[in-house]
Amino acid sequence: MNNNVLTELDEQAVHYIAVGAAVLGTGGGGDPHIGKLMAIEAIRKYGPVRLLQPDELADDDLVVPLSMIGAPTVMNEKIPSAEQMTKPLDLLERELGRKVTAIMPIEVGGGNSLVPVIAAAERGIPMLDADAMGRAFPESQMVTFYLDGYDCSPITMADERGNAVLMHAVDGIWEERMARAVTIQMGGSASICDYPVTGAQAKRSVVRNTLTQAYEIGRTLYLSKERKQNPIEALLKQLSGYALFHGKAVDIRRRTEGGFTRGEAVFDGTDAQKGRTMKLYFQNEFLLATEDGKSLAVTPDLIALLDQDTGMPITTENLKYGARVTAVGFPCDPKWRTPKGLETVGPQYFGYDTSYVPIEVLAEGKGGAAHE
Amino acid sequence: MNNNVLTELDEQAVHYIAVGAAVLGTGGGGDPHIGKLMAIEAIRKYGPVRLLQPDELADDDLVVPLSMIGAPTVMNEKIPSAEQMTKPLDLLERELGRKVTAIMPIEVGGGNSLVPVIAAAERGIPMLDADAMGRAFPESQMVTFYLDGYDCSPITMADERGNAVLMHAVDGIWEERMARAVTIQMGGSASICDYPVTGAQAKRSVVRNTLTQAYEIGRTLYLSKERKQNPIEALLKQLSGYALFHGKAVDIRRRTEGGFTRGEAVFDGTDAQKGRTMKLYFQNEFLLATEDGKSLAVTPDLIALLDQDTGMPITTENLKYGARVTAVGFPCDPKWRTPKGLETVGPQYFGYDTSYVPIEVLAEGKGGAAHE
Repeated sequence: MNNNVLTELDEQAVHYIAVGAAVLGTGGGGDPHIGKLMAIEAIRKYGPVRLLQPDELADDDLVVPLSMIGAPTVMNEKIPSAEQMTKPLDLLERELGRKVTAIMPIEVGGGNSLVPVIAAAERGIPMLDADAMGRAFPESQMVTFYLDGYDCSPITMADERGNAVLMHAVDGIWEERMARAVTIQMGGSASICDYPVTGAQAKRSVVRNTLTQAYEIGRTLYLSKERKQNPIEALLKQLSGYALFHGKAVDIRRRTEGGFTRGEAVFDGTDAQKGRTMKLYFQNEFLLATEDGKSLAVTPDLIALLDQDTGMPITTENLKYGARVTAVGFPCDPKWRTPKGLETVGPQYFGYDTSYVPIEVLAEGKGGAAHE
Repeated sequence: MNNNVLTELDEQAVHYIAVGAAVLGTGGGGDPHIGKLMAIEAIRKYGPVRLLQPDELADDDLVVPLSMIGAPTVMNEKIPSAEQMTKPLDLLERELGRKVTAIMPIEVGGGNSLVPVIAAAERGIPMLDADAMGRAFPESQMVTFYLDGYDCSPITMADERGNAVLMHAVDGIWEERMARAVTIQMGGSASICDYPVTGAQAKRSVVRNTLTQAYEIGRTLYLSKERKQNPIEALLKQLSGYALFHGKAVDIRRRTEGGFTRGEAVFDGTDAQKGRTMKLYFQNEFLLATEDGKSLAVTPDLIALLDQDTGMPITTENLKYGARVTAVGFPCDPKWRTPKGLETVGPQYFGYDTSYVPIEVLAEGKGGAAHE
């Protein structure tokens, strides 16, 4: 990645970010297609969105994350309305009695990196080049703001029918319970603002430059062909990532339950990995990759599935039988490797009977084993 | 019943109303014990509550129903906090930008007739001698305000931990879905304000004098002993009601699911009804009484279970194996016998495969059959 940061989001940037954010979104983070279409429509109508770096914020600015909550399975079918995208902001401003300075994505994801673009364009306010995960996670409390002890309230939600909810939750865990229950009743997906933060809080807590990073990833994948590069190799180099497995999807169990897309997928090895098998576990996002019961990559480190030919990311929702993929992994933001981070998003929280081992360590072990 | 109306709620009145409202609450309407204790505590601390008749309201007054939502099973175990009882009012006043003129019960019930007393006493505002059902029903849209097409929003909710929710629902059906889902997450019960109405709307739509009526019923049951009356006979005379069945509970299936207490109970006949069997179906409230598959009484008409000796009402939650009871029935408010009323609370809505027949008609048929 180069050291330049994006300062404006136009149509081209949205194209790149949709793809790059889907890589960092580790299979989840909302549907890339819907988010992209709505963001492009908003930019055509209202013009490009100015992108802010956290350090440009004043300490008492009001920064508000805006996203879609729910199962990606549903978002593919139940298209959000444009009005639904700004309503949580309206409700929040009314509750707080002040205007929002900047909107930010709560997570990186093909959908949720772009949802704020829709509202920022319409409102003519800037968007922050940052998020509160540095990837995507399935539950509301899985944000750096929660690790830093920030108040998640007021929380505002809307559906496409005109239902709207404002909540004050005791903490992020209670927010997750109540907001998820409301989401299910709203038909499985809803727009939401939570963790409104001050400029000072944002500067201390966000994961920086994740929109710029998504842009660069998308650009690499789109341009690799004309540069005659292997897209996956270019990407791994750019992100200091690891190729975990080359395989073909032979078994996919996916269910929509409790407001999530949950399941596991099995891949038979291809190429150098013929005869081997990888299992991938997910809850909206890919959370654990194993081979013969041994971890290849473990949440909170990032796991992405890429099309073997194009390098394009595949979401948990769009993974299909027979797909030829390369599973890749990247180290997560250091905040997730702290005790509170691992308690919040480590494998045991999700019910996987394994311990967290950093992907760098696993990759070395695997490298060793491969030479046996 | 005499024609005098209550003008003030003191400790004595609360005692009578708790019992009388549990009769009209048809087995549900919230737990009478907790409601009574909290109302008496509030009256001791803040003094008696003034009772208003609907005609005393100005057209632009703001009248707000306050109640507990959830499964009675849970309310017995999870005691609400006093703060929780006024919080939905605070949230509503803030949202509407004006003060509440009077509080009213949303339904008649041992608990929910008294919940508004707690807030009215603390706030020093009057309470309306009326409700929006004339009995108790399990779901939020089952109110005369819904039949009259009033807006149920804003809706405000609180739990005992400090979680609070404000909702704008498209209609009462959406309120029920979302509020029920939040209630389940809040641990199975919550305090709620919904259907805030103007004085003019209240005058047009409420079921009148239901607190006075509950008071008179409670007084009859308490005083029958010293008056050497049979309490049940006195009650039936007072309410123009019908004795449906004398029996002993031999089978009770009760489950807490979807935020409700659901189930059915079987009674073997005693006295003149020896050898016969009654089945009683409930969802928080008793909704259908049958004998050999034939209806004895059908929702929306009222069904209550009374202790054979004392005449005291038995809730769906407190019904115990071996209890000797008399099932009684009363005609419902005429609003429920309209097509929209029956669509909203008739037997088919609850999934019972039977048609509504007014209790007066059923009682005559049964009288006839008994003479065969």
